[in-house]
Amino acid sequence: MTLDAINFWLAIAGTVAFAVTAVLAIADRGVDIFGVIVLGVITAVGGGTVRDIILDVPIFWASDLVFVRVAVASSILAFVARKFFTLPQIYTLMIYTDGLGAALFGMNGALKCWELDFAWPLGPIILGVITAIGGGIIRDVIVGRKTLIMSTEIYAVPVALGCVLMMALMYFFPDDKGRVLVTCTLFSFGMRAAAIRWNWQMPAFLVTKSKALWSD
Amino acid sequence: MTLDAINFWLAIAGTVAFAVTAVLAIADRGVDIFGVIVLGVITAVGGGTVRDIILDVPIFWASDLVFVRVAVASSILAFVARKFFTLPQIYTLMIYTDGLGAALFGMNGALKCWELDFAWPLGPIILGVITAIGGGIIRDVIVGRKTLIMSTEIYAVPVALGCVLMMALMYFFPDDKGRVLVTCTLFSFGMRAAAIRWNWQMPAFLVTKSKALWSD
Amino acid sequence: MTLDAINFWLAIAGTVAFAVTAVLAIADRGVDIFGVIVLGVITAVGGGTVRDIILDVPIFWASDLVFVRVAVASSILAFVARKFFTLPQIYTLMIYTDGLGAALFGMNGALKCWELDFAWPLGPIILGVITAIGGGIIRDVIVGRKTLIMSTEIYAVPVALGCVLMMALMYFFPDDKGRVLVTCTLFSFGMRAAAIRWNWQMPAFLVTKSKALWSD
Repeated sequence: MTLDAINFWLAIAGTVAFAVTAVLAIADRGVDIFGVIVLGVITAVGGGTVRDIILDVPIFWASDLVFVRVAVASSILAFVARKFFTLPQIYTLMIYTDGLGAALFGMNGALKCWELDFAWPLGPIILGVITAIGGGIIRDVIVGRKTLIMSTEIYAVPVALGCVLMMALMYFFPDDKGRVLVTCTLFSFGMRAAAIRWNWQMPAFLVTKSKALWSD
Repeated sequence: MTLDAINFWLAIAGTVAFAVTAVLAIADRGVDIFGVIVLGVITAVGGGTVRDIILDVPIFWASDLVFVRVAVASSILAFVARKFFTLPQIYTLMIYTDGLGAALFGMNGALKCWELDFAWPLGPIILGVITAIGGGIIRDVIVGRKTLIMSTEIYAVPVALGCVLMMALMYFFPDDKGRVLVTCTLFSFGMRAAAIRWNWQMPAFLVTKSKALWSD
Repeated sequence: MTLDAINFWLAIAGTVAFAVTAVLAIADRGVDIFGVIVLGVITAVGGGTVRDIILDVPIFWASDLVFVRVAVASSILAFVARKFFTLPQIYTLMIYTDGLGAALFGMNGALKCWELDFAWPLGPIILGVITAIGGGIIRDVIVGRKTLIMSTEIYAVPVALGCVLMMALMYFFPDDKGRVLVTCTLFSFGMRAAAIRWNWQMPAFLVTKSKALWSD
């Protein structure tokens, strides 16, 4: 399998996981099947849509509807079989796959910006993070849930650090795109997986409610 | 009157209804006249704005400000005469006109995507729904109300089904644009009107809180 | 110093104030340093980003990252030294500088639309307001705070009136761009400063909860 093919199939797995975790996140709220599909699709493709709008390039799902189709099918599946997806082992698998999807979407988003030479080095980092977490934030805002940004879970930080690492590596190895992509995705997913496994939280001194470093 | 002229005047009526129902929806919240105008305009033109951004075409209201002007005027009118618009008969008329506006905006949005050959067949359906309900969702998010997606009211589903029907009909009758537009708008509005008249709700087995179809 | 240089340095001051007041606004919510940076940057550059997307021109911060850099640095500074920034005199200074930023961003946003001949006269007014308050609204929506639109504070109205004044002046003095910009910015900031100083609120008859003007 080529790197492109691996990347594609992992992106499909990530899309499934994004849609499924979206449906599970709202399952206790009394949303109908139409809302379930809308929110599943938004979660799966919303971040990449915002990225492409900011980049002013054609929306990625318009030229190939496979990601929207997979998101619709996964949302319906998650709705119908939500008891299955909340089984502890399956749910855990989904959470890790969701983390892999975030790493993968984030790194691919950052790489797309890098290839378009968009606002290096902060542009690719910002748009990588938006690609990974933008859809979930739009979902939470529409649903009225507390958004990811307001939690101290280690979810977006691995994506951001992966993008920073990618910009550094691409600066030194501009011809090694494939290897840089793999390295940064593994780094980002590894950090997220560790955060899930050991339930890492942001240290208190990096959270606003704790005592300010500067004291009067 | 030509079909274009009928379409235009119905769109004006829909814009009035969108702005008026927006103002009535927030009238109990202590919003000032500036906020009222902002929210009325967002509700009326927000969905089409998001659609045009995703299509990457000029925003529809920029070339002809009549829709923004009508939305501003309707919002002010609804603010000043909100006791009039909450009279039962007038309010009911507004709810039906709002449903007509949603059907009309949705079908015209889907048709615009179809003409631009954007991501057939899911693209026109997605953007048709965004055209119809996007503005109302942005309004509810800014206001902090429960959004449409979180309700089991039959509001967006007639738009989505109308768009599905339109894609099917345009596939078989690509030269009958006018008749397809009228048919799908009537179908979509008819379903919405029936939902208002008989207070239809989504059946429980299509809502997440009910028992999952798949049981462990 | 040329007008452009003054404009630039005031925009930097406004960016600092936007990011700092954003961080202070969420300091009681338990947001981590990553969230603080995201929200500070969104508040500072979010409005201009939405404006440029609607105008379909390159995003202003992509060609020169200085505004994003200043927003990141200010957010970190505000996080670390939040006790300093909540000292009464410093906080008051920040509130006024934030008002200056809103006036400046609003007027520059409206002027940019005017120069692009976008939907005169309502287009520049709408996009001027979006430039000034769009970022703050996105922040409040993500954070789950009551948005500006739902308050009766005199914050957006001076921006809107400044944009109206600008469109009138540009109509009569199209060659006096510099002077019109200065006049409208001073007018808008002056009104906001007065509203802060004397705690102006919208008069009750312009707020929805008060008695409707039209009575049945």
